[in-house]
Amino acid sequence: MLGGCASLTKTMAEKILGRASGKDVSPGEIVEANIDLAMVHDLTGPHVVEVVEEIAGEVKVWDPEKVAIIFDHHVPADKIRAAELQVIMRRVARKLGIKKFHDVGRGGICHQVLVEEGYARPGMLIVGADSHTVTSGAVGAFATGIGASDMAMVWLTGKLWFMVPESIKVNVIGKLPKGVYAKDVILHIIGKVTVDGATYKAVEFHGDTIRNMTIPDRMTLSNMSVEMGAKAGMVPADEVTVQYLRERGVEVKPFGPDPGAHYEDEWNFEVSKLEPQVAAPYSVDNVHPVSELEGTPIDQAFIGSCTNGRYEDFVEAAKILKGRKVAEGVRCIAIPASIKQYMKLLKDGIIDILAEAGCFVAHSTCGPCLGGHLGVLGPEEVAISSSNRNFRGRMGHPTSKVYLASPATVAASAVEGKIADPRKYL
Amino acid sequence: MLGGCASLTKTMAEKILGRASGKDVSPGEIVEANIDLAMVHDLTGPHVVEVVEEIAGEVKVWDPEKVAIIFDHHVPADKIRAAELQVIMRRVARKLGIKKFHDVGRGGICHQVLVEEGYARPGMLIVGADSHTVTSGAVGAFATGIGASDMAMVWLTGKLWFMVPESIKVNVIGKLPKGVYAKDVILHIIGKVTVDGATYKAVEFHGDTIRNMTIPDRMTLSNMSVEMGAKAGMVPADEVTVQYLRERGVEVKPFGPDPGAHYEDEWNFEVSKLEPQVAAPYSVDNVHPVSELEGTPIDQAFIGSCTNGRYEDFVEAAKILKGRKVAEGVRCIAIPASIKQYMKLLKDGIIDILAEAGCFVAHSTCGPCLGGHLGVLGPEEVAISSSNRNFRGRMGHPTSKVYLASPATVAASAVEGKIADPRKYL
Repeated sequence: MLGGCASLTKTMAEKILGRASGKDVSPGEIVEANIDLAMVHDLTGPHVVEVVEEIAGEVKVWDPEKVAIIFDHHVPADKIRAAELQVIMRRVARKLGIKKFHDVGRGGICHQVLVEEGYARPGMLIVGADSHTVTSGAVGAFATGIGASDMAMVWLTGKLWFMVPESIKVNVIGKLPKGVYAKDVILHIIGKVTVDGATYKAVEFHGDTIRNMTIPDRMTLSNMSVEMGAKAGMVPADEVTVQYLRERGVEVKPFGPDPGAHYEDEWNFEVSKLEPQVAAPYSVDNVHPVSELEGTPIDQAFIGSCTNGRYEDFVEAAKILKGRKVAEGVRCIAIPASIKQYMKLLKDGIIDILAEAGCFVAHSTCGPCLGGHLGVLGPEEVAISSSNRNFRGRMGHPTSKVYLASPATVAASAVEGKIADPRKYL
Repeated sequence: MLGGCASLTKTMAEKILGRASGKDVSPGEIVEANIDLAMVHDLTGPHVVEVVEEIAGEVKVWDPEKVAIIFDHHVPADKIRAAELQVIMRRVARKLGIKKFHDVGRGGICHQVLVEEGYARPGMLIVGADSHTVTSGAVGAFATGIGASDMAMVWLTGKLWFMVPESIKVNVIGKLPKGVYAKDVILHIIGKVTVDGATYKAVEFHGDTIRNMTIPDRMTLSNMSVEMGAKAGMVPADEVTVQYLRERGVEVKPFGPDPGAHYEDEWNFEVSKLEPQVAAPYSVDNVHPVSELEGTPIDQAFIGSCTNGRYEDFVEAAKILKGRKVAEGVRCIAIPASIKQYMKLLKDGIIDILAEAGCFVAHSTCGPCLGGHLGVLGPEEVAISSSNRNFRGRMGHPTSKVYLASPATVAASAVEGKIADPRKYL
């Protein structure tokens, strides 16, 4: 119903974009919406500043309370250029009085910080100068990645135009088997619908499997929605969401679509018999059950990233790594997604287990996920990673290969030195 | 007595080079000596391999038991080039059957690994393709840094020529005051004798202050001997050394100079009233008592490196950081010098204290010391660091500034956000 008439009952995207633009909106319609929260990181922030300065003659933002600046990609600085950009952004944050500023060692990966700090809330319209901004959809926000020049407009005006997307309802039902996680669910979905299966759609995740998921799990789903092209990947905010945010001192109400809202499409998945899933090079939709890839030798295993770098992810990995050793010839790199996650893992002895097993543990940074630092792959090297992308060269050399999987599958593979099924260890 | 007649009683350097060349040697004499241990790391190893292959047509070593390959400079790989070099060196280590091979996450900073693994022993002749190879002098070895083409000759023949150096006896006496450490002693010495005060000399550290020092402390002294130009910086191996190595499963005998050995010079230092010392930019001999530099604002504090990244260093830093916070606007980066140091710090709750205070903690790597990664400085940024060099651009941008100090002084400065005297916290 692109460009069709307005429906009385709305999807989450329609409700949020309607509220933010102050009118009743329908899919296909172009609206100018007020932004609730605008996030940049150490790599994209400087481009935004450059454009803003070019247009306005000085750096400024429409509302410092609604801007977040979070350093995560190259932290601590891994080269002079990265340090230079961080110097610029520190000055900008200070000058503009940005309170949601997270410097090196004072936050973590931007998408994790937005959610765990309670910045992202149900019903919000959030833009971030990073494609995985969709992660905040886990708490029922319409959150999406935008380019630096769009972000410059947001900094100057607080507004941005959107074409209201069609919505897709993804129903996931069934109890996940042991050793199968949210990551396996989203890899399975992307494998089925392909990397452009949801291009510019607003995806909503429904069904009992989702309702039974924690916020960290939901973040994995929302995070990877962009890997099927989605503009946003949202989970209705329910009591789980309310409770999660309450623990962070934020009171919110449940938020979801209107009953009877119109969806362009509905996808149904039954996951009670799902195997652990692995996305093989060089595409996120090249997804196979782990049994088809078991035995593939690996050089590096990475547990971390905005996709799967949370406390719960490392707890699952630690169940497998405890009392075992990373295989000879394999590097296992473990990087929690934020300082808060790191501290909790440290207190609970999980860091001990990871280090004892032979993992290289570092404080929070994006690190190897994007071939940034702390584990860039060399020629022909093979990695299994809990992160989100396995494009050619994503984690290093163009001839290196990346397999994507859950933290448990990554941990089992680290122990065996080849892709392995985590279920035998659980 | 350059080129003079042989003395019957010998300094440590003369005894070691004599034994290694199978003859009675005197300062100024050129000898061909058998190498006991040859070390390369991830940055210098590939150059050595290149030269060896060019000469011999293939990679080989005279004795795989006497070669160590230790990854530390850019680990985990921070760029594709670093990853490529590591791929090369892994293949070489495997092909040659090098048992003293320490990959990412399986060792630490090369100089730390040589000592803590018990590879370096009293009386050994050790060469390493890194200037801080002198560190192994702490256990009574003649250890020195050499270039990659020299190292290629060592790999091929097991031998290298040396001009037997004159020896300098450094006597340090007096009980170190609280808050003053081995680092302050060596900075004080370098400040007095300047960066070329011991060029091509074999320095021996004597006196009760040294005898009362642990091996970790002695490593700090030996490590920085090269900063006054020394060819080697040795501490006679005594019962402290014997015990340290016994704990690592290595039985050795005490080893020192002959009584009455001839020294070209003797330097005497009384340290019972020494203040904490700080080397200001841009030279290691630009040394001042901390009182003269107190209040200088800093952007970054670094605790780590082969100079001061050991358990004992972090324990001292933790005494100051415990219950306090790293100042707003300052990054404090803490990187233990080896996995073993990290594990011990983790078990004893020291990592918790560092992280709780707001330090960015990472597993072992050289990291920011050489402006490699994990804390490269930007334009005009100021750091205080427990490492060994503060040349222009050493830790990043050419306009950045590095102050060198003990881990305690670095920790106190991190807390205050400016250079601070640690004694007020102890």
